[in-house]
Amino acid sequence: MATLCRPAIAVPEHVITREQTLELARELHAGHPQLGLALRLIANTGVRTRHLVQPIEDTLRHPGFTERNARYEVEAKARVPETARRALAHAELTPRDIDMIIYVSCTGFMMPSMTAWLINTMGFRPQTRQLPIAQLGCAAGGAAINRAHDFCTAYPQANVLILCCEFCSLCYQPTDLEVGNLLSNGLFGDAVAAAVVRGDDGGTGVRLDHNASHLVPDTEEWISYAVRDTGFHFMLDKRVPGTMADLAPALRKVAELRGWDISGLAFYIVHAGGPRILDDLCTHLKLPPVMFRYSRATLTERGNIASAVIFDALERFFEDGGADHATQGIIAGFGPGITAEITLGAWVTDEKPAESPARQLVRPRGK
Amino acid sequence: MATLCRPAIAVPEHVITREQTLELARELHAGHPQLGLALRLIANTGVRTRHLVQPIEDTLRHPGFTERNARYEVEAKARVPETARRALAHAELTPRDIDMIIYVSCTGFMMPSMTAWLINTMGFRPQTRQLPIAQLGCAAGGAAINRAHDFCTAYPQANVLILCCEFCSLCYQPTDLEVGNLLSNGLFGDAVAAAVVRGDDGGTGVRLDHNASHLVPDTEEWISYAVRDTGFHFMLDKRVPGTMADLAPALRKVAELRGWDISGLAFYIVHAGGPRILDDLCTHLKLPPVMFRYSRATLTERGNIASAVIFDALERFFEDGGADHATQGIIAGFGPGITAEITLGAWVTDEKPAESPARQLVRPRGK
Repeated sequence: MATLCRPAIAVPEHVITREQTLELARELHAGHPQLGLALRLIANTGVRTRHLVQPIEDTLRHPGFTERNARYEVEAKARVPETARRALAHAELTPRDIDMIIYVSCTGFMMPSMTAWLINTMGFRPQTRQLPIAQLGCAAGGAAINRAHDFCTAYPQANVLILCCEFCSLCYQPTDLEVGNLLSNGLFGDAVAAAVVRGDDGGTGVRLDHNASHLVPDTEEWISYAVRDTGFHFMLDKRVPGTMADLAPALRKVAELRGWDISGLAFYIVHAGGPRILDDLCTHLKLPPVMFRYSRATLTERGNIASAVIFDALERFFEDGGADHATQGIIAGFGPGITAEITLGAWVTDEKPAESPARQLVRPRGK
Repeated sequence: MATLCRPAIAVPEHVITREQTLELARELHAGHPQLGLALRLIANTGVRTRHLVQPIEDTLRHPGFTERNARYEVEAKARVPETARRALAHAELTPRDIDMIIYVSCTGFMMPSMTAWLINTMGFRPQTRQLPIAQLGCAAGGAAINRAHDFCTAYPQANVLILCCEFCSLCYQPTDLEVGNLLSNGLFGDAVAAAVVRGDDGGTGVRLDHNASHLVPDTEEWISYAVRDTGFHFMLDKRVPGTMADLAPALRKVAELRGWDISGLAFYIVHAGGPRILDDLCTHLKLPPVMFRYSRATLTERGNIASAVIFDALERFFEDGGADHATQGIIAGFGPGITAEITLGAWVTDEKPAESPARQLVRPRGK
């Protein structure tokens, strides 16, 4: 069975605080009829700081899609390799041990994908499978884990490197003035994440048990890009924050089909698209807010960093020591479609303490 | 073991002949210093007809990336479902039998991907995995087969629907005037392809045995998109036609690792990016041109239809009756990276003739 190892995260050096965001919104949209609503929505996100690849004054300029996408490439090449190297080190592997690279990013477009450049510059083998995914948005991190899990199920000795590169600030569109756009401008942040899925049983991390996908019917227009001369324009329907009414039952059902109780798991690592997602999951799954503390911390400190959210939250879970050996948990990415990519797994550790061998006997419920 | 079933192909109704293409090039580029070279290159492609989603006069206009991409979406929604339905019928499956949709296309960009719309409109289950791939170019058809194969290896009862939607004419850039661009304008065509990979052993088709990927080191700039305000600009290096010197040995090695003789297979279904690819494969693999007749026919009648080429060639192979039961062959997509996606498989048929049961005993070499 495959193990999702400790992720590596990198956030860029330019920081914008909630106060600066609110002040900017007041300045830029002084005459906007719904400015008050937009400010309240931004304040309610709970986002305190976000990291950007450029200083805010450059972020606010739109130099055209040509230049934006060229900037994406420069920043990706500058930031992804170091993050990848740390993730490999966490998994105790080298580039030559990797059989597939899954590169997910919805904030820039390159062909060939970054995977070709990474293979050429970082010492991956020419035989490494390349799987670039650009169109699953915030759900792509979950999709990457799940496709890595499938690959390691097919080839139990394989190792997969997942890379998420999300520079949401490079999709800032100054002419988009819907309330949903103003909110998004105060919500999204930039980050790079990397993690290895090891096909063997080695290592500490989340032993992957089962994965699933769920599309909420007839919601494909709720989260979307309008693709224009000016690049990707993020469109957010006001019904999106209520999506957990549909997705929480889907999570429950996926768990039940494996005999797991969704309300009694040891850990929950979910996409924190906004605060309402976490609040509603607490309600629908009958869980205290503390169970979503890692995702909440990511949202607070980094904003919605798209497909990288679940890896940032997961890294906090690792940092915190994980859970009891062999206890069960769930990872879920949510994104356009509306799609949930759902992973069931168990926390496992290599370092089973000699003083309490009984911990090793704890079995996940339903197994 | 998984079986790649008979593909379905659809080409649009607007046709342009080689003579029309040459005449257009003479008109549009009358003063071009390398017009003679460009005309010779176009004539040498061997492409006789190509199919386009719009009349040629509309194709030649560039209304901006916004309108181009909107046109992509309209045309994809109009053309993909019917092709998908035929591929499902070939596999004797319905949308509800499909566990994953792999949608590949490098000529338009949508988020959410077409997969969400297809699930909502064609009756696929909400649990269907969505794998959109936009950044592997002409190699994506091979990648789709290989990822479908992996998925069915992990879940032997699963079925995967592959969809390729390539409207290369929507990436025509009238201001790109390098010889490589002029050649491309006379080479690429539009098409939609679909095929099912069945996880069980049922059906007639290519029983998938093994897959591999190979990147030719340090060639990532040879085939690429420049992503600009005006959309995707195809960049073709003049060294590309010689790529088979690197890829033929890679194909040979992949076969050898399975104990197969690359020069003695029963069928060869490869990406016909241009005529030199097929000529050089004949030389390097010591094969007569007739072994590439299906790929050659696709190039001649439809041009380079990107990721759809291998499915169009494969359909001709099916139409021709396939090969002897259990004889081995290779499928290979080539694209940016430079990347080859390589599939080894054997032709199998459900209809084993009662009059010659001995055919069933033929085993692929090396097994």
